[in-house]
Amino acid sequence: MTAWQIEIIGLIAAALTTLSFIPQALKIWRSKNASSVSLTMYLVMFIGVLLWLTYGILLDRLAIILANGFTACLQLMIIILKLKHR
Amino acid sequence: MTAWQIEIIGLIAAALTTLSFIPQALKIWRSKNASSVSLTMYLVMFIGVLLWLTYGILLDRLAIILANGFTACLQLMIIILKLKHR
Repeated sequence: MTAWQIEIIGLIAAALTTLSFIPQALKIWRSKNASSVSLTMYLVMFIGVLLWLTYGILLDRLAIILANGFTACLQLMIIILKLKHR
Repeated sequence: MTAWQIEIIGLIAAALTTLSFIPQALKIWRSKNASSVSLTMYLVMFIGVLLWLTYGILLDRLAIILANGFTACLQLMIIILKLKHR
């Protein structure tokens, strides 16, 4: 496998793990219910993603910055929705 | 900042984003309720994490393999719990 083919697998992986938060945000938004969603999970993961973002900025890697910046925004939305619809 | 200090930020980030799934799994396990947890989110993310694992194996990067291997196991547990306690 060439280096580019491997990098494409990484890019698809990054897209899927980032976009996966959209259906969760929509589910809470529509149902106005987040009772079984763990706030602890999203708070811990949000801090982790902010650290990934810092890591990307320090290394100046655009892919890490974009993927984690977008993920952080989606997770912040889920945290706000969770606090609103406990 | 030295390369090692940056790498430590990455390792803490990896630990937090991986371990964050544990409180969600425990919450469903204890409450026997996963009604507001999105199955679509976990299925899409699980495929993404398996691709990250493939990426790590192809590049022979132990940190990527370990973090995503462990994350995949935790997400599979959440998917099974979600299917059991819809």
